[in-house]
Amino acid sequence: MRVALAIVPEVRELLHEDPSQLGELLDEIHEEDLADLLKLLDDEEAITLLEQLEAHEAADIFERLDEQEQTELVSQFGAERLAPIVSEMAPDDRTDFIESLPDEVGDRLLETIHPEAAAEVAELLAWPEDTAGGRMTTNLVRLSPNLTAEDVIERIRAEGERAETIYYVYGVEDDDRLAGVASLRDVILAPRGARLHDIMSENVYTVAPETDQEDVARMLRKYDFVAMPVVDDKGRLLGLITIDDVMDVIKEEQDEDVHRLGGIEPMEETYFRTSFMMLVRRRAPWLVVLFIGQFLTESALRHYDPVLQAVTQLTYYLPLIISTGGNSGSQSATLIIRGLATGEIVLGDWARVLLREVGQGLLLGVTLAALAGLRVWWLGGIEGMNYTVGLAVISVVLVGCTVGGMLPLVLRRAGLDPATSSAPFIATLCDVLGIVLYMTIAGFIMEAVVVRR
Amino acid sequence: MRVALAIVPEVRELLHEDPSQLGELLDEIHEEDLADLLKLLDDEEAITLLEQLEAHEAADIFERLDEQEQTELVSQFGAERLAPIVSEMAPDDRTDFIESLPDEVGDRLLETIHPEAAAEVAELLAWPEDTAGGRMTTNLVRLSPNLTAEDVIERIRAEGERAETIYYVYGVEDDDRLAGVASLRDVILAPRGARLHDIMSENVYTVAPETDQEDVARMLRKYDFVAMPVVDDKGRLLGLITIDDVMDVIKEEQDEDVHRLGGIEPMEETYFRTSFMMLVRRRAPWLVVLFIGQFLTESALRHYDPVLQAVTQLTYYLPLIISTGGNSGSQSATLIIRGLATGEIVLGDWARVLLREVGQGLLLGVTLAALAGLRVWWLGGIEGMNYTVGLAVISVVLVGCTVGGMLPLVLRRAGLDPATSSAPFIATLCDVLGIVLYMTIAGFIMEAVVVRR
Repeated sequence: MRVALAIVPEVRELLHEDPSQLGELLDEIHEEDLADLLKLLDDEEAITLLEQLEAHEAADIFERLDEQEQTELVSQFGAERLAPIVSEMAPDDRTDFIESLPDEVGDRLLETIHPEAAAEVAELLAWPEDTAGGRMTTNLVRLSPNLTAEDVIERIRAEGERAETIYYVYGVEDDDRLAGVASLRDVILAPRGARLHDIMSENVYTVAPETDQEDVARMLRKYDFVAMPVVDDKGRLLGLITIDDVMDVIKEEQDEDVHRLGGIEPMEETYFRTSFMMLVRRRAPWLVVLFIGQFLTESALRHYDPVLQAVTQLTYYLPLIISTGGNSGSQSATLIIRGLATGEIVLGDWARVLLREVGQGLLLGVTLAALAGLRVWWLGGIEGMNYTVGLAVISVVLVGCTVGGMLPLVLRRAGLDPATSSAPFIATLCDVLGIVLYMTIAGFIMEAVVVRR
Repeated sequence: MRVALAIVPEVRELLHEDPSQLGELLDEIHEEDLADLLKLLDDEEAITLLEQLEAHEAADIFERLDEQEQTELVSQFGAERLAPIVSEMAPDDRTDFIESLPDEVGDRLLETIHPEAAAEVAELLAWPEDTAGGRMTTNLVRLSPNLTAEDVIERIRAEGERAETIYYVYGVEDDDRLAGVASLRDVILAPRGARLHDIMSENVYTVAPETDQEDVARMLRKYDFVAMPVVDDKGRLLGLITIDDVMDVIKEEQDEDVHRLGGIEPMEETYFRTSFMMLVRRRAPWLVVLFIGQFLTESALRHYDPVLQAVTQLTYYLPLIISTGGNSGSQSATLIIRGLATGEIVLGDWARVLLREVGQGLLLGVTLAALAGLRVWWLGGIEGMNYTVGLAVISVVLVGCTVGGMLPLVLRRAGLDPATSSAPFIATLCDVLGIVLYMTIAGFIMEAVVVRR
């Protein structure tokens, strides 16, 4: 925002006095900062500014606005006035934008924009938004493999203005099949007369249009690619998915994972952009579900009332024991959910995960039980109390680690998002299990103590 | 791994029969897959394979191995044998690698590698590993602004082989000051005779070497850059930070955030690569701290023993009430921690956050209190129980949201990682506060009931 705030007074002045001078001022400023600038202007000023720029420059800025701001400009000024700008947007951004509009507005806009641009939208709409097909752009440089390096550079010079990236060029056969890829680097470094088919690599890493966007992100990160071609099952080149789109995907997916882990339904927008009521609606479902789940703790405690009545001291340690189960369960769930999200853990690893979590549960449980034993001894609990609390701690930590480690795998297996086994969810589950374990152990040990007396 | 698994039998055969043929087979395969391949071979085979390749190709593969595998190869075969490969690694990867070695091994390697390579390492070691300076590469194309577009392409052709990226070229004055940047795209699209100073943009987005790597990642994402120059306070160009390094940073930082949120100390390695004992050591500190924190719940319950003794039904609702505080607190903390991590929330927003969280806490609390009231009525609790539980639920949700929302801001203010206020930490805090609130409310209402009788 800093850049935008610095230039806004000057821009305002020019807008009202001599808008034709704007181009020169804005030329050196990054589109992202210009998008920030538009947010500071009122709608009338914003549209005047956009109209002063060349359509492709205006499109570069417009596609960086939030959906909300884009929609507002359309509803304010009508499809006709924005059509030239929308026609020049990158095909993937243009498609997302039109999809975000109310149906009738989107349809009117599709009729108003350049027919070629409308056709591109129709093509991209065929794929779900969160797949490679939905994220790809169709603006790329397709070349015959017979061209020389010098021809290739000439062609890039001619076509490159419109392409999303010119850092890769694609060798494409007459039947549209992808024959190979060369980075601009390879082309530049090659002798001028070399043919593209000798420069390009034929062993191309591609993705299918159905590929989930998260998998695409993972591949780009693994291989350090800046872009990847999207190819159909006949090997035909459909489009290109670029790293700047993927960086956005990574952020969105990460937002979603973190929110799920915290027991919040994923949100489309940032904290302050989400309305107060929307925030409440994202939070209430899980809170209510967990609250009703907690009714089980109440029933369990009612059930064990005789034990509690017999040894009132048991109540003192209740929060300690059930929370410890929840804490260790949250830790295990976090480890496994993150491992699944990054692809480091797969379903087939379940036995190894189980073994490791049980082992950790035992070791951590024994450590904490020793601490608990010391505490009870220090406070001078009644006979058997130290064993009861110690054994209960070991059991809940063991159960917490096992449930926390396994539940994400079970959810993934069932086709659900593993992050649904959020920390609050695991904690609630461990509360119920913890009460049952604690009371059972207490009943057993305390009875033995009483009998021995 | 699939690619590596497919070629490993053929590679093994060639290694034992005719290693000189390997180059041709491996030429078309991505370095990342070759790194996977090395993991499948034994150490002797791996080093033979690396030595069959040209040093810069071998370096491309070597820098993609894990630190552990790199270290093993060095300790197995000695600094001398690996020096040619290490000399050809990218300066940033070379520095990280040498830093990861035991001091005496690293020092021997520094003496053995090419002196220029050793000097680059010394330069990069001056900056902490998690800053732009620590992550940057010094291999970049520096050009006089007076060159023509054609000269620029010639120079890239001559120097580009060594540079980390050729997609940006940097105009540098005689005194090393950065004068401007041009993308290769701009150079290619410009008329051949145009001068670099006319093509390049002088309004360059740069970072200081001290800039935190997370901030660099955020800027690259915001502006869709593939690389950014690192510039000192005198405007001199020190190096370049590229998107492939940043993607790795983003993953590492996310791992760290997610783990912290789950109450685990950040780990260097993936789940299965982390040893069993190391996992326990990452988990134990927080579990122990929280466990000792939970002793407060025990003390609180002892303190309120007279209330509990007077109305034994109160115990039934104890887990429900304290967990609900923890759940709503975790949600708020998650929202704010994520907002801070992505830069959408800043410290100055504290008053707005407070207002929103208090509002949400009230609304969510009243909703859950209504459910609780129904439940108590349904089960036929004693007089005053419904008000006690209802008011306690409203209070703990309100306190949970406030604490969960404010604590990450307080931690950030104190210079700590906001994610330290993990879900388990917030839950434990809310357990203690929940008991105090519940018991105070119960004491108040129940006394009133008794008096009225």
